[in-house]
Amino acid sequence: MTLPTAILQVICPDRPGLVSSLSGWVAANGGNIRHADHHTDAGAGLFLSRLEWEVEGFGLPREAIGPAALALAERLGGEGSLRFSDGHPRVAIFVGRQDHCLVDLLWRTRAGELPMQVPLVVSNHPDLQPLAADFGARFVHLPINAASREQVEQAQRELLSELEIDLVVLAKYMQVLSPAFLLGAPPVINIHHSFLPAFQGAQPYHRAWERGVKLIGATAHYVTEELDGGPIIEQATITVSHRDDVDDLIRKGRDTERLALARALRLHLRGQVMVYRGRTAVFS
Amino acid sequence: MTLPTAILQVICPDRPGLVSSLSGWVAANGGNIRHADHHTDAGAGLFLSRLEWEVEGFGLPREAIGPAALALAERLGGEGSLRFSDGHPRVAIFVGRQDHCLVDLLWRTRAGELPMQVPLVVSNHPDLQPLAADFGARFVHLPINAASREQVEQAQRELLSELEIDLVVLAKYMQVLSPAFLLGAPPVINIHHSFLPAFQGAQPYHRAWERGVKLIGATAHYVTEELDGGPIIEQATITVSHRDDVDDLIRKGRDTERLALARALRLHLRGQVMVYRGRTAVFS
Amino acid sequence: MTLPTAILQVICPDRPGLVSSLSGWVAANGGNIRHADHHTDAGAGLFLSRLEWEVEGFGLPREAIGPAALALAERLGGEGSLRFSDGHPRVAIFVGRQDHCLVDLLWRTRAGELPMQVPLVVSNHPDLQPLAADFGARFVHLPINAASREQVEQAQRELLSELEIDLVVLAKYMQVLSPAFLLGAPPVINIHHSFLPAFQGAQPYHRAWERGVKLIGATAHYVTEELDGGPIIEQATITVSHRDDVDDLIRKGRDTERLALARALRLHLRGQVMVYRGRTAVFS
Amino acid sequence: MTLPTAILQVICPDRPGLVSSLSGWVAANGGNIRHADHHTDAGAGLFLSRLEWEVEGFGLPREAIGPAALALAERLGGEGSLRFSDGHPRVAIFVGRQDHCLVDLLWRTRAGELPMQVPLVVSNHPDLQPLAADFGARFVHLPINAASREQVEQAQRELLSELEIDLVVLAKYMQVLSPAFLLGAPPVINIHHSFLPAFQGAQPYHRAWERGVKLIGATAHYVTEELDGGPIIEQATITVSHRDDVDDLIRKGRDTERLALARALRLHLRGQVMVYRGRTAVFS
Repeated sequence: MTLPTAILQVICPDRPGLVSSLSGWVAANGGNIRHADHHTDAGAGLFLSRLEWEVEGFGLPREAIGPAALALAERLGGEGSLRFSDGHPRVAIFVGRQDHCLVDLLWRTRAGELPMQVPLVVSNHPDLQPLAADFGARFVHLPINAASREQVEQAQRELLSELEIDLVVLAKYMQVLSPAFLLGAPPVINIHHSFLPAFQGAQPYHRAWERGVKLIGATAHYVTEELDGGPIIEQATITVSHRDDVDDLIRKGRDTERLALARALRLHLRGQVMVYRGRTAVFS
Repeated sequence: MTLPTAILQVICPDRPGLVSSLSGWVAANGGNIRHADHHTDAGAGLFLSRLEWEVEGFGLPREAIGPAALALAERLGGEGSLRFSDGHPRVAIFVGRQDHCLVDLLWRTRAGELPMQVPLVVSNHPDLQPLAADFGARFVHLPINAASREQVEQAQRELLSELEIDLVVLAKYMQVLSPAFLLGAPPVINIHHSFLPAFQGAQPYHRAWERGVKLIGATAHYVTEELDGGPIIEQATITVSHRDDVDDLIRKGRDTERLALARALRLHLRGQVMVYRGRTAVFS
Repeated sequence: MTLPTAILQVICPDRPGLVSSLSGWVAANGGNIRHADHHTDAGAGLFLSRLEWEVEGFGLPREAIGPAALALAERLGGEGSLRFSDGHPRVAIFVGRQDHCLVDLLWRTRAGELPMQVPLVVSNHPDLQPLAADFGARFVHLPINAASREQVEQAQRELLSELEIDLVVLAKYMQVLSPAFLLGAPPVINIHHSFLPAFQGAQPYHRAWERGVKLIGATAHYVTEELDGGPIIEQATITVSHRDDVDDLIRKGRDTERLALARALRLHLRGQVMVYRGRTAVFS
Repeated sequence: MTLPTAILQVICPDRPGLVSSLSGWVAANGGNIRHADHHTDAGAGLFLSRLEWEVEGFGLPREAIGPAALALAERLGGEGSLRFSDGHPRVAIFVGRQDHCLVDLLWRTRAGELPMQVPLVVSNHPDLQPLAADFGARFVHLPINAASREQVEQAQRELLSELEIDLVVLAKYMQVLSPAFLLGAPPVINIHHSFLPAFQGAQPYHRAWERGVKLIGATAHYVTEELDGGPIIEQATITVSHRDDVDDLIRKGRDTERLALARALRLHLRGQVMVYRGRTAVFS
């Protein structure tokens, strides 16, 4: 029903005429722009643009659109990336023992809310194998300990490569990924169970209870080498009171975790997130 | 510090090339676009665009920008409107006895949050005269009853005309304006004390209490002939419980009323609201 | 880990000494009160109380607590009800074709968030049979048309009776239950896809889009003979914009529906909701 | 219209029978309890209770209620405090140059939302003198520098003592109070412009922008010797995006600051906040 679109992201040094150059190129090829959003970061001197237009009737064959668009971005002194709205990136979900994010992501994928495929679920625990099976996803159990970490990450990377994974989602995967892993991996999105930068690190709900805060939250962010320091995509909060003990915070937190992660993932998959200088512009 | 910008709104039938035509015109005159936002309503077949660029360095003298821009909009078969970010529209605030919205708007104006002037406060009660005086606004007391309504509206319209008012804000003015008044008046923004369309009409907080709702709200909207039926700009809600009686709803409601009205007004003043077919597109 | 508690709800005419009478009875039997919450509706002249105390060490045997507590409530001229926190009421979930609420409730039940059993899922469509099976719930498919409605409701009531159902949850069951059904049935909780009283009746998301509202919502309420008019337990909202079409409202609405229904159900199951005069007091 | 009430707060070691002892004492004196709320912190082994009953018809003369209630609390091995709902505590507001919290608090006091008097506004800058004058509050200008700090604090304490101040509110007072000041002062409530514990210390909005968070907030808390570490009363947040620069965060933050501070202050003034072990129980 919805016609497929091409989605172009461009980031380049700011100067007059950029919106015109980009939209003019689309128009010159007969494209009908459905969405166009731009942002100028004056402090950084950068221009960010996201253009979305219908593939049907566009003057270039589908396989030629990407190269042409990236060449245009280069001519503007910047970088571009192009995807199609009917593409379904291949996503690997890493989990531990907790199932709430996994069941939510798999259900949303099946319901068509998340335009992606899930060919792989990886865990260091066997618990969620049946859940992955319910939704037809391959489950690989790779236990981890201090001695085996390097070797396990090597196996994980081989799986990602073999299955041509485009994105890794850490859906309550309670392990820290090494810089070496991140270097060779596709983008990684994590859900952290606090409103960062509050309660970075371990056991945020216990520490939130101890501090007596009146709201808790969750943060979906890209993973970088700096623990809990990567670009934030989405944050959600919920109020708590003195009647809530740590178990209540954990229970309430599950809802914010699920929502923040699902929203962030949808934004990423639709090409609505642009990352630059440790932060994101989210064109929603 | 912030450089003044020109803000162009265009609404026209949708077709390929519109973003390019508009941004191309700005570029051709050497303009540096700071914000560009567009929306296509596929069902209505309409394209809406808001462009904002720096006046300094633009190839047309300030007084020529408006006519040229509107001519461009006409060539696209649509309508345009142009304003400058350093303009301060002249706003008349209509009030009754309640002061919370008035004090909030006057304070925000003084604090620079609302780019406007308030040369006139009109009321059918004398109560808020001192408050208007504190902020240096002229206060005109025009009592209303059934017999005098038509005559009073006539006096109000003369004031609006004489003082060259660009916008009327009903800040808890508990009177209904007649179609005749609206026909000749500048745009009118009202704050209604419910999350419309719930509880249209009178005494929404009493009716909310009776219905036992768990949230109350406020709606800022443009006024049309249809009571409480005009295009919605902004809505805000707050949770309530069985412990809240009607007075508590009224007290809590004041905060949502102030916030929804102030946000709507700021959006309007910055040219971020476009009205079409009984609804708004809010480019925020 | 958590010790089981007895939960007493009492509603009676207001007069001095009621808190003392109730808590004094618990103390006289050696009970340790964990939670005590009260509400006086001055207009209605009613006192509502919820007391929760540990069963262990209480001076009455478990099976004698209920009768004694209800006799106390009667002596106060009111009505009482008693439940135990370790009871798991038997809940029947009625569904149509949409699965988001069902999967959420079944998952939360399995995760221990909702202290209940689900021995029965009823639907007028066969679609959700596999989902019920995944979670081990019996699924009964009873197609409905105008001619068969009465007969189907009769079959539903026999199922409820046979399976000793304590509560019916309408989790996107798109049929209206007849007064006759409601008369003989256990309490029924419904999720309505609007922030009532806005958009009562059918197709609320379509009508919300047409009205151009800036927020949508969901309402969990007890079902009475008056369509969409029963006592409200919980409401949730989410913001929308001009960029959201009807399908987006439906998608976003699913999240508010799931959350509002799950929260309402948890409150009900823990005896935190008291209904009186068409409204609820929610002791959370 | 609303009858005056006595409000008793008790904190004592938890044991069976406490609700009964407290409510029994009120009943024995013929009191009609309007609100009763309790909390048990199982980990700390503490019981907290708030009782509110009508003064009229109570069996003790008004001046005898306090001593009798505190004696009761002592017999339970704990501590109590008593206030009357028609009391209007004397509050000193400390400010810097920013006026948004001050104007809000003064307006709410005049509107009857905050049951308090404001006999004193203190500032290290002269800017807000006219605003205090508008609302009839005495304004004392006490400039501070490193050399004069100790002496100024001495002058402040003498003012508090002379004017019999019950509570100090730091409404954007950008100075740190010394331990010596706090030792001799009445309770102090501060508004911090972040959702603590994120961005403790100076310039939270700048740091929030740098981190790229998607929400900002404000925290109202009691002031202790530990900077930004005192018991939290209320927190509020608002969403932000990449379009918001630091000035936008500051502007949006003002609304959360005003709301969080006003709500916290109202809760405190109505005796709804109990402090223990570095945290609060808020009976709302």
